[in-house]
Amino acid sequence: MGRLWKKKEIRILKGNIVYSRNKDELEICEHSYLVCADGKVDGIYQTLPFRLGGNPIRDCGDCLIIPGLTDLHIHAPQYSFRGMAMDLELLDWLDAYTFPEEMKYGEMEYAGKAYSIFAENMKKSAVTRACVFSTIHRPATMVLMDKLEKTGLVTLVGKVNMDRNAPEGLCEETEESLAETEIWLEEVRSRDYRNTGPILTPRFVPSCTDRLLEGLGELQKKYALPVQSHLSENLSEIRWVSELCPWSGFYGDVYDRFGIFGGECPAVMAHCVHSTEEEILRMKEKGVFIAHCPESNMNVASGIAPVKRYLEEGMNVGLGSDVAAGSTENLFAAMAHAVRGSKLRWRLQDESRKPLTVEEVFYMATRGGGAFFGKNGSFEPGYEFDAVVLDDSRLSHPQGLSVRERLERIIYLADEREVRGKYIRGNELFFYGYNI
Amino acid sequence: MGRLWKKKEIRILKGNIVYSRNKDELEICEHSYLVCADGKVDGIYQTLPFRLGGNPIRDCGDCLIIPGLTDLHIHAPQYSFRGMAMDLELLDWLDAYTFPEEMKYGEMEYAGKAYSIFAENMKKSAVTRACVFSTIHRPATMVLMDKLEKTGLVTLVGKVNMDRNAPEGLCEETEESLAETEIWLEEVRSRDYRNTGPILTPRFVPSCTDRLLEGLGELQKKYALPVQSHLSENLSEIRWVSELCPWSGFYGDVYDRFGIFGGECPAVMAHCVHSTEEEILRMKEKGVFIAHCPESNMNVASGIAPVKRYLEEGMNVGLGSDVAAGSTENLFAAMAHAVRGSKLRWRLQDESRKPLTVEEVFYMATRGGGAFFGKNGSFEPGYEFDAVVLDDSRLSHPQGLSVRERLERIIYLADEREVRGKYIRGNELFFYGYNI
Repeated sequence: MGRLWKKKEIRILKGNIVYSRNKDELEICEHSYLVCADGKVDGIYQTLPFRLGGNPIRDCGDCLIIPGLTDLHIHAPQYSFRGMAMDLELLDWLDAYTFPEEMKYGEMEYAGKAYSIFAENMKKSAVTRACVFSTIHRPATMVLMDKLEKTGLVTLVGKVNMDRNAPEGLCEETEESLAETEIWLEEVRSRDYRNTGPILTPRFVPSCTDRLLEGLGELQKKYALPVQSHLSENLSEIRWVSELCPWSGFYGDVYDRFGIFGGECPAVMAHCVHSTEEEILRMKEKGVFIAHCPESNMNVASGIAPVKRYLEEGMNVGLGSDVAAGSTENLFAAMAHAVRGSKLRWRLQDESRKPLTVEEVFYMATRGGGAFFGKNGSFEPGYEFDAVVLDDSRLSHPQGLSVRERLERIIYLADEREVRGKYIRGNELFFYGYNI
Repeated sequence: MGRLWKKKEIRILKGNIVYSRNKDELEICEHSYLVCADGKVDGIYQTLPFRLGGNPIRDCGDCLIIPGLTDLHIHAPQYSFRGMAMDLELLDWLDAYTFPEEMKYGEMEYAGKAYSIFAENMKKSAVTRACVFSTIHRPATMVLMDKLEKTGLVTLVGKVNMDRNAPEGLCEETEESLAETEIWLEEVRSRDYRNTGPILTPRFVPSCTDRLLEGLGELQKKYALPVQSHLSENLSEIRWVSELCPWSGFYGDVYDRFGIFGGECPAVMAHCVHSTEEEILRMKEKGVFIAHCPESNMNVASGIAPVKRYLEEGMNVGLGSDVAAGSTENLFAAMAHAVRGSKLRWRLQDESRKPLTVEEVFYMATRGGGAFFGKNGSFEPGYEFDAVVLDDSRLSHPQGLSVRERLERIIYLADEREVRGKYIRGNELFFYGYNI
C-alpha cells in the first residue's frame, strides 16, 4: 500500500506580520511565525505549534511581512516612457505619446527589449499580482506573457482590442480583431502557464465599435474570461462615449449591454473618476471592481475619484499604478498618492467625505485589489500565500517606532530597495541577504 | 617682486549640461565642458578653449549635469518622523506630532543622533543649498549647524522663536527668546563657518507675540540677517492670525509691520496657499521669496498654492520639501508634486491658469529658489558653481531619449541613487564610481 496522503509542503517566515482585517483595521503580529502549507496560509503563531517543529524557518529579523500587493491596472508597453510626456490630458496624451509608442510593439525586437525591462522591474517590486494591458499585437503579447510567467508573478494579461479612433497601424478590422483574440486565447491555452492568464481587454469604448464589444462578450462567455477596461476617467472621454453610443444610459452601460461588466463576468474598470449615480449603482449590482489610479488621475488632470465613498459603500476597490499615466510601478507611491488626492478632494470638492486613511489605502493595495484574484491579499487561513518581506532599515531614524508607524513610513517612502523577499503561492521568488 | 596675480583654480566637468535660461526655456548643451574658475562658473564650451588646456577633466560620460537644487523650506528636527503622522491638518498636526517631537531636541544626545541622519541624507541628495528650521533650542541648533557645515552644503539655519501658543517646554519667555537668539548669533559668528549662516526664524505669527517680532526686527537690522517663516498656509491659521493681530491688514502685514518682510530684509515665506490680493501685492513690492511646498500642502490638506500665477507675475518663487509635512528631502519629488498639484488646481479650482511645466518646476528648484542665495542656480558665467551630476542609467528603457526627456524622467523618478557627483562653490563633495 502506498501513502494515503502527501505530506504538506510547509514554509515558515518569522517577522512582524501586518495585514488588513478589514478596510479600517490592521492586524499586527510582532515577531510571529507566518506559516504556509501547500501554497496557502495556514496561520500566524506567536509560538510555533509542536506539529510544525522540524520545518526550516526563514527568520526575517525585524522586517515587516505584508501580503503581496495587487496592481489592478498597468500598461506594460507604456513602461518604456514612464515619467515622461506628462503635459497633456487623456485624449491628446493618447494621440501624441501613447499610440506612437504602442505602435512600436509590432516589432518583436523592440517588444522583447521593452518587456524584459518591465518584467524585471515588476519582479523586484512589492507587487505579486497584476492586471496588465499589452497592445493590439498578438505576438508581442505572447512575449510579454512568457516573460511574466518566468518572473513567478501572477498576472492577467490582455491583448488590446481597438477597431475605431486609433491611428493606422493600431486600428484593427473588427472581425480580424476578434479572430486574432481567439487565436491568442488558444495560443495561451497551449502554453500551459502556471501563473499567467488571459483577460479580455477592449481598450475603452471610444476605440471599440458595438460589434467588437459584442464579439468580445461572446468570447467572454465561450472562454469564461475576466475583462479589464477603462471607465469614466475624463470628462471629454465621457462626452465622446455618449456621442458614440447615444443609446447608452451611461458609460458603463455600454460594457454592460454586451455582458462584460460584472455579474457572470469578473470585470475591473480603471478610474471611475466621474461615474454617475446610475453607473455607481450598476457597478454595485454587478460587483464590478474599481482600479483607483490616483497618480494617473493627477498626471493627466482627470480629477480625483470619490474612492472614500466607494469604500464606505462596500464596493470592490483596489489600486492601479496605471503606468505610464502613472510614473511608477511602485504601488507604495500609489497608496501615498491616494491619500494625498483624497485630502485635496476633501479640501476642494467635498467636505463631507474625510480623507483616506493609511488603513484604507493599505487595504486597497492588498485585500481590496487582491480579491480580483480570489482569496488573496490577506494572511487569514486559507488565503493564497503571497507575502512580501520589507526591510526598512534604509529609512534611518533616531527613535523607536511601532510597526504601524513603520508601515506608514513605508507607504510614503519605500520602493523596491525595501523589498528583501517575495513569495507567491508559497514559492520563494527571491530573498536577499539572509540565510535560513 | 611677488607674483601679481594668483592662478585661478580651474575645475572642468564634461557631460550633458542642462540649466534654466528662464522659467520657460532650458539651455541644453550635450557632451560639453562646464568650466569652473575660483568657485564660479566660467562658461560652457563645446570644444575646450586653448587657455584651459592642461587642466584635469572630470568626464561624466552620458550623465546629466544640472545646477544644485535649493530647498527653500525644510524642518531638520522633523526629519525623524518623515513619512508618518499624516492624518491631521496643520494646527492639530503641530500639537499632536510636531511639538512633542521638537521637544526632544532639548536633549543633546537625541539631537546629535537625529541631526546626523538629517545631514547625511541631505548631503546625498541633489540639494546644494537650503533654508533650514531648527527648534527653539540653541545648543541643538549649534549641533545642527556644525553637522551641516561638515557636509559642505550651503545652508541658512534658524533657531526657532516661539513665545505663545506652544506647549510648556517649547514656549519661551519673550525677552529670553530674544536674548538666546543674540547669544546664538554671537556663537555662530565665533564658529567662523564657511558654508553655514544664521537666519532669523519666528515660527509663525500664532506662536510669536508682537513684542517678539519687534525684537527680531531689531536683531535683523543690527545683524543684517535674512528671515524665514510661514505664511497663509491654512485657512484656520489665517483666521487665527487675524484674531491675534486685529490691527493687521492681512497675515503678511504682521511680519511687514516689524520690518521682517522683504525690502532691506531678505525674507522667504513658506506656502502662500491662500494669500489675498493685498498680501500678494505687498510681497511683490518687497521682493519676498515664496517657498512653494506642494507635497506638504497636500499632506496636511492645506490646498494648492497658485504658483503658476506667482511665476507669471514675476515673483520670487522656489520649492520647499517642508519635511515632515512633506515626506522627503528629495526635491525631484517636490517638482513632480508641484506639477501634479497644478493640474488638479487647473481642473478643480481655476481653469484660467494652465498647469506648471517641467521647465517651470525645474526653474523653481534651481534658479528660482537659488536666487535667495545670490547668483546661484544657473550655469551662466559668474554664477556660483553648484553642480550635480546625475546618472539615470538605473531608469532603464528600450529607446533613445533626448536630454529633455531624460530630465523629465529624472523629475518623476529620480532620488539620491541618481546623484553621482556634487559640487558646491567649486568644491567636490563627492563623485562616485569614475576616475578622472
